[in-house]
Amino acid sequence: MRQEIPYKIYLEEQEMPKQWYNVRADMKKKPAPILNPGTLKPVTLEELSGIFCEELAKQELDDVTACFDIPDEILNFYKMYRPSPLVRAYCLEKKLDTPAHIYYKFEGNNTSGSHKLNSAIAQAYYAKKQGLKGVTTETGAGQWGTALSMACAYLDLDCQVYMVKCSYEQKPFRREVMRTYGAHVTPSPSMSTEVGRKINAEFPGTTGSLGCAISEAVEAAMGQEGYRYVLGSVLTQVLLHQSVIGLEAKAALDKYNIKADTIIGCAGGGSNLGGLISPFVGQMLKGEADYEIIAVEPASCPSLTRGVYAYDYCDTGKVCPLAKMYTLGSGFIPSASHAGGLRYHGMSSVVSELYDQGYLKARSVEQTEVFKAAQTFAKVEGILPAPESSHAIKVAIDEALKCRETKEEKNIVFGLTGTGYFDMVAYQRFNDGEMADYIPTEEELKKSFATLPKC
Amino acid sequence: MRQEIPYKIYLEEQEMPKQWYNVRADMKKKPAPILNPGTLKPVTLEELSGIFCEELAKQELDDVTACFDIPDEILNFYKMYRPSPLVRAYCLEKKLDTPAHIYYKFEGNNTSGSHKLNSAIAQAYYAKKQGLKGVTTETGAGQWGTALSMACAYLDLDCQVYMVKCSYEQKPFRREVMRTYGAHVTPSPSMSTEVGRKINAEFPGTTGSLGCAISEAVEAAMGQEGYRYVLGSVLTQVLLHQSVIGLEAKAALDKYNIKADTIIGCAGGGSNLGGLISPFVGQMLKGEADYEIIAVEPASCPSLTRGVYAYDYCDTGKVCPLAKMYTLGSGFIPSASHAGGLRYHGMSSVVSELYDQGYLKARSVEQTEVFKAAQTFAKVEGILPAPESSHAIKVAIDEALKCRETKEEKNIVFGLTGTGYFDMVAYQRFNDGEMADYIPTEEELKKSFATLPKC
Repeated sequence: MRQEIPYKIYLEEQEMPKQWYNVRADMKKKPAPILNPGTLKPVTLEELSGIFCEELAKQELDDVTACFDIPDEILNFYKMYRPSPLVRAYCLEKKLDTPAHIYYKFEGNNTSGSHKLNSAIAQAYYAKKQGLKGVTTETGAGQWGTALSMACAYLDLDCQVYMVKCSYEQKPFRREVMRTYGAHVTPSPSMSTEVGRKINAEFPGTTGSLGCAISEAVEAAMGQEGYRYVLGSVLTQVLLHQSVIGLEAKAALDKYNIKADTIIGCAGGGSNLGGLISPFVGQMLKGEADYEIIAVEPASCPSLTRGVYAYDYCDTGKVCPLAKMYTLGSGFIPSASHAGGLRYHGMSSVVSELYDQGYLKARSVEQTEVFKAAQTFAKVEGILPAPESSHAIKVAIDEALKCRETKEEKNIVFGLTGTGYFDMVAYQRFNDGEMADYIPTEEELKKSFATLPKC
Repeated sequence: MRQEIPYKIYLEEQEMPKQWYNVRADMKKKPAPILNPGTLKPVTLEELSGIFCEELAKQELDDVTACFDIPDEILNFYKMYRPSPLVRAYCLEKKLDTPAHIYYKFEGNNTSGSHKLNSAIAQAYYAKKQGLKGVTTETGAGQWGTALSMACAYLDLDCQVYMVKCSYEQKPFRREVMRTYGAHVTPSPSMSTEVGRKINAEFPGTTGSLGCAISEAVEAAMGQEGYRYVLGSVLTQVLLHQSVIGLEAKAALDKYNIKADTIIGCAGGGSNLGGLISPFVGQMLKGEADYEIIAVEPASCPSLTRGVYAYDYCDTGKVCPLAKMYTLGSGFIPSASHAGGLRYHGMSSVVSELYDQGYLKARSVEQTEVFKAAQTFAKVEGILPAPESSHAIKVAIDEALKCRETKEEKNIVFGLTGTGYFDMVAYQRFNDGEMADYIPTEEELKKSFATLPKC
């Protein structure tokens, strides 16, 4: 007989992970190195330290060290909002009438509203430790910008956020949260950087793009003494910090002797998915356990399910290192009907390599189905999920319904990365029956694949 | 030496309260009875059961029973988001350089964003149990409407919300959260009720008021078979349900042998304050302990600090029972510059009576100071607080700073009722330096006191 599982499994403070886990250390075949966009040779630590803080550049390039101590200052910050609960979705199980046991690791119980804070505080901490004055970054939907603003406010570090202009205007509340935390938020393209002025001159009235905002943030960091650029996803350093999600989830499962069968995460750049699955994949790599792992991506931006595995630019401005990844080509832009995040053209090189080696499956889902799943979940489990997270909910529900057919008592674990309070425009479209689905045609993908570099 | 206190004290599920506590049972001098607005005689159970569910009407009138069992169905719902954490504000203490120990009971970690859900699920449950089809209510800022929508979605009960028209238009996201949970949200005044049509005819283009929305909700409940009206604050039944806040807080403090010295809560209608202080006041009433209790209200709506203790109308439409309370008169309307909730003209009759008997103090604060405190708190403790909750933060900070002077190691506990994600318009005003303060003049109060009934 199974032990009585509470609705929410909270670890005690002393049970919280004290180290991050670097899954690359246990991979026999490592992810391909990132390349200098100028020389097309592997980036050196020195080169990378011009863009990132030294410690973060080291973490980015280190594929040997399995465990990194989490500094005490970061642990103390984590204690303000972590450990996050692993929730047993009793009400959802009942609603679905499934014998499956559904668990979700909920990362939305902090003001930034998502898991992004786990890496934001780490990146801000190393910048502060290096004696920097501040950091620059870009933000699209705003989760990352909010998280970084919070971390910088805590450490009294200057924070400059280039926010894609259409988001800046359409999501004024996101902007105001950042400002309340003392961040300087600039709509991108701006007139304060060379690249911004150039784009404004070339495309008058443009409402911006993530690629342009990245370029502006990098230029701003380079142009100011004591500043570095930071990023909220895709990078392997980010996956390292986000491993805290998976480590906590695993500790909570172990505490109640629960063996996960299926682990599900939404996948955009891979920060959440990579963090969630790290320790589980680590066991698989060492032959200690086996799991079914499913990455869920939007059908409108299907890098894993329809992309190619190749070196590509990480940004449209082509100033950042190149990475080998599953990609749609840096020229890919998701349809305007696509709501929320998960709109990056590529996928973390670690997640890409693990996918290529067969450690995880990928599935793409259409957004109307995703919002239906989100609503079902919200009604019975209380939490209003972010559109991103709802991709994982959709597949968790599908898997639980399969168990109803097969009568399997599987343990399904999924990552609930955040809340949807700042995504109500998308919910409104859904509530009004005006949400559209979009799947790129073969022709469109062919066009964006043409933007891949020849290397 | 004190025991090591974690950042967040979480009770185990089995430590959660199984009963609500009715503080009236232990009061020697009871709060004055509510009166039928027609006869000006104490309302009977029968009369009240026409408006409220029978069980809730019973709870409303019962000032003898100290403990009410929380039904299992409600306990299970509570388990989805409760117990809420009692947080030790280590970072705030450090920032203030105070020897005081500051704790806050955080009720914002649920999608409704506040403590309102504690009573919403109870009221929805009793409605469902009575076999009703649905409930009607009004909402201003939207916290209560959201909470009730969530509770009704969970129980598959129809939910009709009359939302003050200016909020409906200015807070579309609040409205969409309710709609996502399946609620029917109508801007008030509407054309679907007699009182709505009358007001629309009399004041064309009016953007509505809480008083009008209450009248519409009551009329809608009366006019539909199988419907009752529900309310999120002021009522003693609401304070009963909200006692779960105080009971949990007390259990968490007891678990670590912490004796609170000062307990602080924001006060509008009294739902949070009354719930938070109930068990502590219970000890005071029985002579078992002594606490300094401080109710904090906006200087722009100062019912306790500048109101009179008298029978008054609970709604501007004068359809609800009269209650004896500290009140500014039902004709009082806070200045347009006042942000957030805490804008009710009166105060829960239980809180009023306890205040009259000297069990608590009251203090009023101006909103610019409140938002400054909110920002300080957000930067070091991570959480972006609701404007309402920030009234308590302001006074908690003041008290902690006093301790710095006196070198007292006091234990200060305050209620952090909710999050401010849907209040970013007010934060923006603050960020832009455009927030105004307002204190009603003696002349203005005199005018609104003139709206008091002669009884």
